Amino acid sequence: MAERVLVINPNSNEQVTAGMSAALEGFRFTGGPAIDCATLREGPPGIETQLLADGVIGPLCHLIREEEEFTSAFVIACFSDPGLHSARETTRRPVLGIAQAGLTAAMNLGQRVGVISILANSLARHARYFRAMGVESVIAGDLPIGMGVSALADEQKVFTRMSEVGERLRDEHGADVLVMGCAGFSSQRAALEESLGLPVVDPTQAAVGMALTILRSRGR
Amino acid sequence: MAERVLVINPNSNEQVTAGMSAALEGFRFTGGPAIDCATLREGPPGIETQLLADGVIGPLCHLIREEEEFTSAFVIACFSDPGLHSARETTRRPVLGIAQAGLTAAMNLGQRVGVISILANSLARHARYFRAMGVESVIAGDLPIGMGVSALADEQKVFTRMSEVGERLRDEHGADVLVMGCAGFSSQRAALEESLGLPVVDPTQAAVGMALTILRSRGR
Amino acid sequence: MAERVLVINPNSNEQVTAGMSAALEGFRFTGGPAIDCATLREGPPGIETQLLADGVIGPLCHLIREEEEFTSAFVIACFSDPGLHSARETTRRPVLGIAQAGLTAAMNLGQRVGVISILANSLARHARYFRAMGVESVIAGDLPIGMGVSALADEQKVFTRMSEVGERLRDEHGADVLVMGCAGFSSQRAALEESLGLPVVDPTQAAVGMALTILRSRGR
Amino acid sequence: MAERVLVINPNSNEQVTAGMSAALEGFRFTGGPAIDCATLREGPPGIETQLLADGVIGPLCHLIREEEEFTSAFVIACFSDPGLHSARETTRRPVLGIAQAGLTAAMNLGQRVGVISILANSLARHARYFRAMGVESVIAGDLPIGMGVSALADEQKVFTRMSEVGERLRDEHGADVLVMGCAGFSSQRAALEESLGLPVVDPTQAAVGMALTILRSRGR
Amino acid sequence: MAERVLVINPNSNEQVTAGMSAALEGFRFTGGPAIDCATLREGPPGIETQLLADGVIGPLCHLIREEEEFTSAFVIACFSDPGLHSARETTRRPVLGIAQAGLTAAMNLGQRVGVISILANSLARHARYFRAMGVESVIAGDLPIGMGVSALADEQKVFTRMSEVGERLRDEHGADVLVMGCAGFSSQRAALEESLGLPVVDPTQAAVGMALTILRSRGR
Amino acid sequence: MAERVLVINPNSNEQVTAGMSAALEGFRFTGGPAIDCATLREGPPGIETQLLADGVIGPLCHLIREEEEFTSAFVIACFSDPGLHSARETTRRPVLGIAQAGLTAAMNLGQRVGVISILANSLARHARYFRAMGVESVIAGDLPIGMGVSALADEQKVFTRMSEVGERLRDEHGADVLVMGCAGFSSQRAALEESLGLPVVDPTQAAVGMALTILRSRGR
Repeated sequence: MAERVLVINPNSNEQVTAGMSAALEGFRFTGGPAIDCATLREGPPGIETQLLADGVIGPLCHLIREEEEFTSAFVIACFSDPGLHSARETTRRPVLGIAQAGLTAAMNLGQRVGVISILANSLARHARYFRAMGVESVIAGDLPIGMGVSALADEQKVFTRMSEVGERLRDEHGADVLVMGCAGFSSQRAALEESLGLPVVDPTQAAVGMALTILRSRGR
Repeated sequence: MAERVLVINPNSNEQVTAGMSAALEGFRFTGGPAIDCATLREGPPGIETQLLADGVIGPLCHLIREEEEFTSAFVIACFSDPGLHSARETTRRPVLGIAQAGLTAAMNLGQRVGVISILANSLARHARYFRAMGVESVIAGDLPIGMGVSALADEQKVFTRMSEVGERLRDEHGADVLVMGCAGFSSQRAALEESLGLPVVDPTQAAVGMALTILRSRGR
Repeated sequence: MAERVLVINPNSNEQVTAGMSAALEGFRFTGGPAIDCATLREGPPGIETQLLADGVIGPLCHLIREEEEFTSAFVIACFSDPGLHSARETTRRPVLGIAQAGLTAAMNLGQRVGVISILANSLARHARYFRAMGVESVIAGDLPIGMGVSALADEQKVFTRMSEVGERLRDEHGADVLVMGCAGFSSQRAALEESLGLPVVDPTQAAVGMALTILRSRGR
Repeated sequence: MAERVLVINPNSNEQVTAGMSAALEGFRFTGGPAIDCATLREGPPGIETQLLADGVIGPLCHLIREEEEFTSAFVIACFSDPGLHSARETTRRPVLGIAQAGLTAAMNLGQRVGVISILANSLARHARYFRAMGVESVIAGDLPIGMGVSALADEQKVFTRMSEVGERLRDEHGADVLVMGCAGFSSQRAALEESLGLPVVDPTQAAVGMALTILRSRGR
Repeated sequence: MAERVLVINPNSNEQVTAGMSAALEGFRFTGGPAIDCATLREGPPGIETQLLADGVIGPLCHLIREEEEFTSAFVIACFSDPGLHSARETTRRPVLGIAQAGLTAAMNLGQRVGVISILANSLARHARYFRAMGVESVIAGDLPIGMGVSALADEQKVFTRMSEVGERLRDEHGADVLVMGCAGFSSQRAALEESLGLPVVDPTQAAVGMALTILRSRGR
Repeated sequence: MAERVLVINPNSNEQVTAGMSAALEGFRFTGGPAIDCATLREGPPGIETQLLADGVIGPLCHLIREEEEFTSAFVIACFSDPGLHSARETTRRPVLGIAQAGLTAAMNLGQRVGVISILANSLARHARYFRAMGVESVIAGDLPIGMGVSALADEQKVFTRMSEVGERLRDEHGADVLVMGCAGFSSQRAALEESLGLPVVDPTQAAVGMALTILRSRGR
C-alpha cells in the first residue's frame, strides 16, 4: 500500500476542510505520502462545546475503522482533539491530534506558548486538556477572538481579531510563540507571523508534519 | 536558495554522523530540502559531561554562522542539546535540539516517556534540562545503559543493553513510549520498537522531521 | 418538586446498580432528597476502555435531559466520569462524577491517595483525568486488581485482590487513604477499611454526599 | 450513642457561631446526626494572624478531647484550619477543616477556584496552606475584602465588598466557582451566588456535608 | 548592641542543645555575632508529633519576645520549624527555621535532596511542610531511621542507622545531597559525609550560616 | 592552607568587581576565610545574552583550575550562573552560583520572590534556569529595569529604576522578598530595602555567605 495520511475535519464545514488542504500543499512530495483531507459528514457546523466535541467521537471512530485499510496515519483536525484516545484504541495506525501536535511543535520554537482560540467558552475545555497532556506549565495564555467557526469565512475580520489577541499574548502574557487554536484559522498563519514577529504554528500543519515524521522514521 | 537542513553532530565521531545520515534517508524527498550531516571537527569523541557539552558551544556557533547563508534550518544532534539557545541567538534560521524535538515528538505517541541514556552521569544533566523545558511531568524515567559514545560501535551489545533498560522503563516505570537518549543510537530504533512493543523515537529523526514541518509550513 | 438525586450507572449491569443503591441507604433521610439509581440501558456491560467511556456520553446526556424536570442533582456513577462536562452543558442541575467526588473527598481523610482500579488498561485513562482535574500531586498510586466489571460478582475473590493491592498502596506507595476506583466495588468498603486500617472511600457514596451538600446548602 | 457532628468556632465571637448554626439548618434531618455548634471560649475575637491561629490549637484540642465521647465527627470552623493535624492526632473521630472541605467541594463545581478572604494579611497564610494541601494548581486567585472578623456584623457592607471582589475573581482571574474564605461569611452565600452567577461555597456547610458523608458511608 | 544569634532548641533535651552548640563552633568568629543556644524549658523531651510541634509555639514565641531586645536573629532548631510564621509575626528580627534553611542550603550542593528523619510518623508532617515551602520538587526522598529523640544518645547506633538510610536515599532514590532531618543529629554530619561520599547538611549549621549571611549583608 | 573564598566576576568590568568586594566587607572576619574577588579578563563587558554567558565557561573553568590549589570555595558572580555545572565537574571544591544562592536565601525571608533584572532579554534565560533549579513555584515575578551592565555606573538612575520595578513586584506581583538579579547591583541593596520595606537580597552576599556556611560546617 502506498503511504497516505488522512486528515479528518470533524466538523461538517467543507470550507474549513478546503482551507486546511490548501495549507498542507507544502507537505505533498513526489514519492511521499498522499495527504488527503476528509469532512466528517455527521459532524456539526463547528465544534464549540464539550457536548459537540464528544458527539463526533462515534462517527469519527467509525470513519477511522472504514479507512484504516487505506491509511497509514490519521490526523484529527479539531483543536479539542475530540476522541483522540478512543481513536487510538480503534486503530493501530498512529493517530495525531492537532492540539497535541501543535502545542508540542510550538515547544520547539519558544518557551512560552500563547494560544489564540475562537470562543471564550473554549478556554475551560482547553485548560482541562492542556493539564491532561502535561503541557500546562509552558502555556503563557489562551485568549479567544470571540468568533465561532461559521464566522471564520470573513478572513479580514478574523485577521484583525487574531492580531489583537496575538499582541496581548505577546506583550501582556510574555508569549514567544503562538499556536492557532482552531483548524479553521489555517489561511491566517503567514500574515500573522509576519505581522506579530513571532513564530505562529498552524496545528494542522504540525500534526501532518508529525505524521510524516512517524512514517518516515520507519525506514530503519 | 534551495532548502537545506544541516544536522550537526557536535562530537567528532564520524561513525555517529554516518549512522544518523543513514537513519535520515526517509526524510529525503524529490523536491524536498537537502538533508546534510556534518561532524564538528573541534568536538570531543563523545559528549559525556556538562564540561564537554559546554565546550562545543563556541565551535558549534562558529559553524552555524559559516553555514547560515546556505542553510534553512539547523539540527544540533546531541541529546544534551548543547548550545541550543546560544545557537538561536546566533542565527535567525530555526535551530532544533534533538532532545527537545525527540521528547516533544514522543508526547504525541504516549503519555509516559522513558529515556534510554548512555552513562549514569548523564542523568543529572538531563534532569536539569527536562525541567528547564517544562517536560519533567511526562518523564516516566531515564535509565543508562552504562556505555559511552565510543563503545556504541558494538551494536549487538548496545541492543542487548537497550532492550534490558527499555523493559525496565516499560514494566517498572510505566513508560508507554521510549526516546533513545543519544544520537549514536540511530541504528537501533526499528529493532528495539519491534522487540519491546512500544513506539521508540530516534530524536535525530524527530528533529529533522520538525525542521521539515517548519520549512514546509511556510507555503502560506 | 421534591428533591431527588439521580445516580446513573452508565453500564448496563443491573447488579452494579443494585449494589450501589444498597450502599446509599445511609443517605436516605426522612425529609431528605430521594436517592434513585438508574441503569443506562444503552451502556456496555462494563466501561473498561476510553472507547466504551466515550460511547455512553450520548445516551447518558439523553437520559439526563429526560430526567432533568424530576431531578435536583445527577451523579455519573463510573470512575472514568464519562461525559461529565458534556452533562454539565446539558443541564443546569449539578452533575457530580464519582471519580472527582471520591478523590476530593479522600483529600479530607489523608494526604496521599491510593486508588484501587479494575484493569491495568484503566491506569493511563485515569492518569489523564487526574491531571485534568489537578489532583495528580496527591495521588500516591493507582493499581489494578486485574478483574473486569463482569467478574466483580465473585465478591470473595474481589476482596482478596483489593486487600493485596490496598496493602501495596499503603506499604510501598505510602497511601494513607484509599479510593475504590469502580462503582462496582461498593459492597467491599467496610471490610476493606477494617482489614487495612486506612479510610476507604466508596466514590459513589462520596458523590451522593456531595450532591446532598450542594442541595442542602441552598437553604440560605 | 446517637450520631453528632460538633462544629467548633475557634474564635470567641458568638454571633459567628450563631450565623453558622443557622446556615447548617438544611443539614439537620430526622434520624440524621445532631449538628451542634460551639464557641471556643478561649479563642480570640477573630483569627486574623498565624499567631492567633496557632494560639487556639491548645484549647481546641482540649475541647475535642472533652467532647470526643459525645461526638461522631468534628469540624474546625475557621478558614485557616488551625490545629487540623494536631486535632487528628488527638481523636480517632474524623476531623474536618473548613478550608480543606470548602476547597475540595469547590473542585466539584468548577475548574478554577476563587477565594474571598477577610484581610490582605491572610493571603500568605492561605497560600502556604493551599500548597501544603496540594490544591494550589486549581486556585484562580485569593482576594481580601479588607474587613476583619469583628466588622462582619455590617452585612450590607460585607455583601458590597464581597460582590466587588467576587466580580474581580470571575472577570480578571477566570474563577468559575467561589469559596467564602471565612466562617463568618455564612449569611452571604445565597445572595452572592445569585448576584455573581457562579456557584459560591460556604466552607462550613461543605465541611458539615463531608462529615455527614463520612458518617453515613459507614452503613456498609 | 553587639550582634547575637539565638538558637532555640524547642525540646527540653539539654544534650541536644549542647550537641548543636558544639557543632556551631566554626561559626563563632572574633568580631562576629555571639551564637548562643537555649533550651526551651517548657518543651517536650522530643518533638515527634504535630501535636507536640504545635504545643511549643506559645512558649517559643514568649521566649522570643523576652529575648528580642538582646538578639539580632533567631533560629528555631527543630526540623518541623514549629511556629516559624508565628515567630516572624512576633518579632521584626529575622527568624530562621532549620528545615527551611537546611533544605534551601542543600539546593546549592545537589539537585535531588534526600532527608534522613527520626520516626516514620514524621514523614507526613514533613511532606505537608515541604509542599508549603515549595521545595517538594527537589526532594528525592525522606526516610526514617526509626529512633526517637531520646534514643539519639546512642551515637553509634544512630550512625549505623543513618548510614543505611543514607545509602538507600543515594542508591535507590537518586539523592546527591542529604539533609539530616533532626537537630539532634549534629554530631553525625562529618562521619556520614565521609562514609557516604555525598555532601551532608546539618540544618542547624545551615540556619546559623543563613543568620550570619543576613546580619553581615547589612553593612551596605 | 588558610581558607579562601574566590569570587569570580565573569565579566571584564573592574568596577563591578570592586563593587562586590566592597559589599562583602561584612563577611571578612579575623580568623575567617579570606574573601578575594577576581575579574575574568577574557569575559565580555557585561553578560547580557545566552551566547555571552556560554562564552565565558571555558576561561572561567580554566581560572578555577589554576586557582583550585589556593582556594577553598568558588563563587561565580553573574546572575546567569554561567558554567556552574561545568565548574563543579572541574573542581572538587564547592562552587556556588549567585542566582542559585540568592534565590534559595530569599526563600528564607519570604514566600514569593521577586527578581529585578537588567534587560528584558534576560527573562527567558532566567526562566529556563529557574525551572531547571526547581524554584519556579516561588517566583512572584522577574522584571527588567532596561539598563545593561555598562550603564550601571549611573547609580542614581539605577536606584530610581530599581525602586519602580521593586514596587511593581511588591504591589502587583505580591512579592514579599526581592533578589537583585545582577552582580552589578551590589551598592543598591540597603537603600532599596529601606525604601521598599521588603528584604532585598544581594545574591553575591548570599553566595559568599553560603560558601562560609559550607566551610565552617566542616568543623565536625
